Amino acid sequence: MISFRSFVVRPSSKLLFFPKHVPRQYGKSVFSKTSAYYEQISSNPIRMASTTSTRMMGSSMPESRKRAKRGEYSQLESDDISHFSNLLGKHRVITNESEIEGYNVDWLRAIKGQSRLVLRPKNTNEVSKIMTYCYERNLAVVPQGGNTGIAGGGIAVHDEIVISTSLMNQIVDVDEWSGILVCQSGCVLETLNEHLSQYDLIVPLDLGAKESCQLGGNVSTNAGGLRVLRYGSLHSSVVGCEVVLADGTILDCMNTMKKDNTGYHLKHLFIGSEGTLGIVTKVAIQCPPKPKAVNLAFVGINNFQNVLETFRLAKRDLGEVLSACEYLDQETLSAVFENLQLKSPIESSFPFYMMIETSGSNGKHDEEKLSMFLEKAMSKEFVADGTIASQPSHIKNIWNIRERFPEALLKDGHLTVYDFSIPLESFNEMVEETRSHLGPLAKRVTGFGHLGDGNLHLNVTMEEFNPATLAKAEPFVYNYVAQRKGSISSEHGLGSIKRDYIYHSKSPQAVSYMRELKRLLDPKGILNPYKVIPNK
Amino acid sequence: MISFRSFVVRPSSKLLFFPKHVPRQYGKSVFSKTSAYYEQISSNPIRMASTTSTRMMGSSMPESRKRAKRGEYSQLESDDISHFSNLLGKHRVITNESEIEGYNVDWLRAIKGQSRLVLRPKNTNEVSKIMTYCYERNLAVVPQGGNTGIAGGGIAVHDEIVISTSLMNQIVDVDEWSGILVCQSGCVLETLNEHLSQYDLIVPLDLGAKESCQLGGNVSTNAGGLRVLRYGSLHSSVVGCEVVLADGTILDCMNTMKKDNTGYHLKHLFIGSEGTLGIVTKVAIQCPPKPKAVNLAFVGINNFQNVLETFRLAKRDLGEVLSACEYLDQETLSAVFENLQLKSPIESSFPFYMMIETSGSNGKHDEEKLSMFLEKAMSKEFVADGTIASQPSHIKNIWNIRERFPEALLKDGHLTVYDFSIPLESFNEMVEETRSHLGPLAKRVTGFGHLGDGNLHLNVTMEEFNPATLAKAEPFVYNYVAQRKGSISSEHGLGSIKRDYIYHSKSPQAVSYMRELKRLLDPKGILNPYKVIPNK
Repeated sequence: MISFRSFVVRPSSKLLFFPKHVPRQYGKSVFSKTSAYYEQISSNPIRMASTTSTRMMGSSMPESRKRAKRGEYSQLESDDISHFSNLLGKHRVITNESEIEGYNVDWLRAIKGQSRLVLRPKNTNEVSKIMTYCYERNLAVVPQGGNTGIAGGGIAVHDEIVISTSLMNQIVDVDEWSGILVCQSGCVLETLNEHLSQYDLIVPLDLGAKESCQLGGNVSTNAGGLRVLRYGSLHSSVVGCEVVLADGTILDCMNTMKKDNTGYHLKHLFIGSEGTLGIVTKVAIQCPPKPKAVNLAFVGINNFQNVLETFRLAKRDLGEVLSACEYLDQETLSAVFENLQLKSPIESSFPFYMMIETSGSNGKHDEEKLSMFLEKAMSKEFVADGTIASQPSHIKNIWNIRERFPEALLKDGHLTVYDFSIPLESFNEMVEETRSHLGPLAKRVTGFGHLGDGNLHLNVTMEEFNPATLAKAEPFVYNYVAQRKGSISSEHGLGSIKRDYIYHSKSPQAVSYMRELKRLLDPKGILNPYKVIPNK
Repeated sequence: MISFRSFVVRPSSKLLFFPKHVPRQYGKSVFSKTSAYYEQISSNPIRMASTTSTRMMGSSMPESRKRAKRGEYSQLESDDISHFSNLLGKHRVITNESEIEGYNVDWLRAIKGQSRLVLRPKNTNEVSKIMTYCYERNLAVVPQGGNTGIAGGGIAVHDEIVISTSLMNQIVDVDEWSGILVCQSGCVLETLNEHLSQYDLIVPLDLGAKESCQLGGNVSTNAGGLRVLRYGSLHSSVVGCEVVLADGTILDCMNTMKKDNTGYHLKHLFIGSEGTLGIVTKVAIQCPPKPKAVNLAFVGINNFQNVLETFRLAKRDLGEVLSACEYLDQETLSAVFENLQLKSPIESSFPFYMMIETSGSNGKHDEEKLSMFLEKAMSKEFVADGTIASQPSHIKNIWNIRERFPEALLKDGHLTVYDFSIPLESFNEMVEETRSHLGPLAKRVTGFGHLGDGNLHLNVTMEEFNPATLAKAEPFVYNYVAQRKGSISSEHGLGSIKRDYIYHSKSPQAVSYMRELKRLLDPKGILNPYKVIPNK
């Protein structure tokens, strides 16, 4: 056991149990059928998007999960395919059923769409031409980035045309003075990070899916992740975006200045609206300096009150170098042990664990701060045991455990991930109450999340999908959140799965104005229908 | 001379030349007629809001500065006054001309409105009832907070009813775990800071007007200030708001969770829309921990390239503890010396100066970082001389110089403050080109600003207001900004003064959608008319 009492920052042999090259599979696109991950989750049943597939959905399926009725859109015709082939060239117009499957299934393999056409534009003008045509023809579309969402926002519900942004992957500019990056929306997050490295900059967000997810998708879903605590939300760091509207209009909300107070701040309408108001084609984002030093502590904690006390102490004592503050419960870690055969970074078991990361401009200072903080946390008995990593490979290994939680849980058979903002004091209570409420209907009910941002991921696994479990879980969990004035989607969005629960977090007036906004920007409702805003 | 080469953090006797109790007058409300400041600026002529006052405005006044035609709103009648008196009580319905003057004149005394009625509601329901009545009667209103704006956004253009939020000053809640403060919109920024002190928290923004400005006004104008560099914009830190719409609807965008991705992010429509879409009545804002240590360096620099190099070095070496990075030119400091009889913190004169602040959780670490940074900056000859303050009173004295720039410049006779985002490399070039362009038409042309955020304040003073100066300055300065794809209002908003220049920073499509949004939320256009969005 590595005790913090004798803490020194050094390579820890304890960390070497990880395979040297653990494939980073969470977030791997399902496009790649050769992906091991894709194979691994083949046991996970596919539900139809907001579906009523009679095979899988019993009468106990919550109403909200039933497939919405198809809108009165035109049916795709062969002339349409010809038109798009002329516009993009045949190789960027996908009609082959097996190729389309990757675009029709989400990465959790929980939802299946019925799209029969995928378009792969390379630039804004092509997106605009596609939308002009679709608007004229009244054809519905669904924009799709890296397909790493888990609320169904990027998956067709019926036969919407998929507009994939994957080929819109050009980096336009990096301003060294201001740190502002401009790029097309299809750039993969980790690719951007690699590019920014030469300027000593990083992208201001980090999430498990970073090797697949695209910046445009991040913007469209207001993605959160591990570093919101440090760098704030995308509403702050995205300084501009370019968007194609439903009728093909290219709306220029581009701006490469950090501050701009000229008129209404339209760009925020497209941050987090999940592609239902416009297709983000270009993004300008403020990138912070790359930290010169990073340290990561993994600690075991005996009760949830001490998780909170540790967080409060970390905020006060680590202050500006605190860059992530995650918590997980023993049930989550057990899934990692059992299903992925990984080992814990610490020897003993505890009911709770935290991952506390510092990033700063002076390694010595950061280590001193972290050391003093941990000494205090141990002397106050908030923290029972722990280990620290400061070498990049060791840090990566510990984060790898965190990033593989969903994969580990998926291996139980079927996984439903909930994503809530609730008061911190209720985090563990909610996990326990849900576990007790579901009883044997769930294989595992676990909790982890971005404690520093008040964001709990509640996970329910089953050996195989059972609609009765879902029917018992929902709206139970949503009611729990609403009673505490929380958010039923902290960072994953509503997509098709949660849109009917919007009233659990938003007032009828607010939803009514959202509907009016949708009507204003997309009068025919062709952009990503059946998502986010429920029908009246 | 205090050289950084022998730098130690200690009280500097150099700082004691400041009067012990310099009244903090910038931002003092003009409501108080006994304010010395109000008297001091009485030499500043008052222009009518977006005015054509024939007395002061010659034929060379730019079209955009002319008063907009009055909209077809109802005229105020005695029955209306009776109605409001029944609703609020007589003492909260102001009709006395001399009392109203403070609400009709902006703090720069540059703009004068013609309102004949001021209402002072205490809560959201009262605001809602006022708006329901005004909507029914087609009476135009202008919401006003601390009246510290400088674009005319809070001043009536014609006879709009002023709805003052000053009595809506209740703090509702502070969540110690999350650091989220909930309060009414009329709370004064500095009062909030004082209240937060007991929780070891601060508000995430700081500006010269903090002793008068109100949080609701800050939100409505997306106020920036000194700490955007560190804490990001209000689009990130404001987690929720409550808004009364034109027809009296109370729109609940309240949320006390940091992260929420349920539906369209409506609250952002009210951040920075200057009260033209709704009246912010309540705010929830994420407050960061109070820094345990603050240091402030004031340095002299020989050329503008070295200002940029110093900034780049500060970002890299001070990293996470850098909390403000301001620049000013000698011409700005000269105005402070000449007009306020203050002395420089350093003995020699330089063409440029910077104020570089660190705030952190460990004083020793911060001092080490600042010391190492300054040593490097001096050895590279970026910085020529400087002084450091670490005692709160000395820091306050140096910031006091910064906060009194507008007051000092005003004392020339008349001041026009421009507020631009442009590429950093162009900051000084713009000041020099404007000075050369205006020649003897200006008394002084100076530059200072939030360098760390790319935000230049360009100042033009005259001994007395001369419309020919304005006509020569505009659109010259706006064209300069537009050519560099900058923002013509970085943090002050458009108000009535700059609304017709919106196209210099925004595309026609964007403005057209803004107009549609206005129509959606305020179909009769009664909320703060003649502001932000130009007529077609």
